[in-house]
Amino acid sequence: MSKKKRVLSGMQPSGLLHLGNLMGALDNWRTLQEEYECYYFIADWHALTTQYSDTSKMRTFVHEMVIDWLSAGLDPNKSVLFQQSQLPEHAVLHVLFSMITPLPWLERVPTYKEKMEQINDRDLYTYGFLGYPVLQAADILIYEADYVPVGIDQLPHLELTREIGRRFNSFYGEVFPDPQPLLTQYPKLPGTDGRKMSKSYNNCLYLSDTPESITKKVMAMVTDPARQRRTDPGNPDICPLYSLNQIFAPREWCDHVKRECPKAGIGCVDDKKELLKHLLAYLKPIQDKRKELIANPKQVQEIIDAGSAKARIVAREMLGRVQEAMKL
Amino acid sequence: MSKKKRVLSGMQPSGLLHLGNLMGALDNWRTLQEEYECYYFIADWHALTTQYSDTSKMRTFVHEMVIDWLSAGLDPNKSVLFQQSQLPEHAVLHVLFSMITPLPWLERVPTYKEKMEQINDRDLYTYGFLGYPVLQAADILIYEADYVPVGIDQLPHLELTREIGRRFNSFYGEVFPDPQPLLTQYPKLPGTDGRKMSKSYNNCLYLSDTPESITKKVMAMVTDPARQRRTDPGNPDICPLYSLNQIFAPREWCDHVKRECPKAGIGCVDDKKELLKHLLAYLKPIQDKRKELIANPKQVQEIIDAGSAKARIVAREMLGRVQEAMKL
Repeated sequence: MSKKKRVLSGMQPSGLLHLGNLMGALDNWRTLQEEYECYYFIADWHALTTQYSDTSKMRTFVHEMVIDWLSAGLDPNKSVLFQQSQLPEHAVLHVLFSMITPLPWLERVPTYKEKMEQINDRDLYTYGFLGYPVLQAADILIYEADYVPVGIDQLPHLELTREIGRRFNSFYGEVFPDPQPLLTQYPKLPGTDGRKMSKSYNNCLYLSDTPESITKKVMAMVTDPARQRRTDPGNPDICPLYSLNQIFAPREWCDHVKRECPKAGIGCVDDKKELLKHLLAYLKPIQDKRKELIANPKQVQEIIDAGSAKARIVAREMLGRVQEAMKL
Repeated sequence: MSKKKRVLSGMQPSGLLHLGNLMGALDNWRTLQEEYECYYFIADWHALTTQYSDTSKMRTFVHEMVIDWLSAGLDPNKSVLFQQSQLPEHAVLHVLFSMITPLPWLERVPTYKEKMEQINDRDLYTYGFLGYPVLQAADILIYEADYVPVGIDQLPHLELTREIGRRFNSFYGEVFPDPQPLLTQYPKLPGTDGRKMSKSYNNCLYLSDTPESITKKVMAMVTDPARQRRTDPGNPDICPLYSLNQIFAPREWCDHVKRECPKAGIGCVDDKKELLKHLLAYLKPIQDKRKELIANPKQVQEIIDAGSAKARIVAREMLGRVQEAMKL
């Protein structure tokens, strides 16, 4: 039997996860673990690139995120779930990669300048923020990942990882294989105000929300803003509620809404109630699992520690090969 | 009795050490170990900032350098002699420091631009070369060094270390004390051609040279270029031989040369023979120790490994405090 291909991905801990994170990553991760040998890591060092000035909530963020991971179906018996900061091997490879990474490669990463322009409440003009892709290259290459699930906007990052690996190989001999992108199209999930679901907009449905809270949020959700009264016709194509329906409600209901809403044949409240039925059913097993994990906080830490110990075996072996190739 | 103050210093492995290295650093290190608790490290990661493209000789360089250290009197029973690359803790602290180090701090280090301009045969425009002072800050602060012996030109580097430490303290609480410079004036040692003794000029007297080789080199050494014949008067002030005399020969001989040379009362050959007498006597114990070590190559590795194990205890404890302060 041939060995399973290896997938690597990470997520920065920044608090409770919402439906956007679920659809944008976790759901995909959960699917991938059936087919691949998956390494998923808590990117807590990466989180420092933007959250360095206040780290007081980091431990809570890590703990909450892993609870969300496990609730959403990541299975420590199938995937290696680990914490970047428990793996000094990543930091060592990062130092070694830093020596061979030309500065212009980093300065030219499209997301670098973008993020610099977007985020204005913090000083991102730091050495670590510039070097983000170098640390990322270490994270990926130390596990010889075959595949990295990425959105199209992250392709340049992965390309940089490959270039760093190739440059290493050109100096010291073939050590790193080229990781391939596992291009994933993620549905853009609208928040309760119609904008993209995002913590900073305060428009999220969280995995940790109670059914009551979800109900309240959905019932207060923005729909087609032109539809003021029940008798006004609505336009599903610009309705955030309809977007959620397309993900969580059955096809027949969506078709029904698509047909009836433009002629005011169905009201937003009816539609919200129907969505809630499916959404709450979808979230039920996640919330049940969550309760179980919260009752057992030690278990979560044990899972992270055990995963990190597994990852360490692979990372150490690889770092040994790296140092051998460099004759250090 | 009060605890000894701690001194930290490092040296890049780049092959056999010469008299310039001995006078410029090792002699001082040897003296310091009588008064301080000294941590001296093989800066092999730092060596990569400029020697990344060919690391094939690194192991030999490390081994040779440590033989020279020990021959010159560094005592593993008094000082902790260790290897940077054996301490992943440095790499971890480097990652953490990278997050809080503003890029302009690095771009403004005077030696950064200087070195960029001086060294043209290699591409130094890399992430790691820019980040040299960040790694250095980690090296120094992880041992809570009280003192760092520096030449005046390295003061800006140490100042940057202190600034990184203070910035860390301002974000996460008092962890790092301010290391102080131990300003040292090193005699400039001329090479056999009269220029500064330097491997790249091929004008060195090596600690590993045999007495025969030292004799040959000194006898062929450049003196006052205006003194062509034995009967020509010489000028000790511009004579590299006289500079060496001032370091290795007794005061009386120097006074004698200073008096007689300008009136051709003494010839260069006489002077060289006298210098050799003192120089060879000075080098004798170094060369004896060297022979002993070469006969025992395992011992050298054991000393490095034992020193690294000692350093690891301190570095781990400190990294633990750092992570605790950052709540990682």
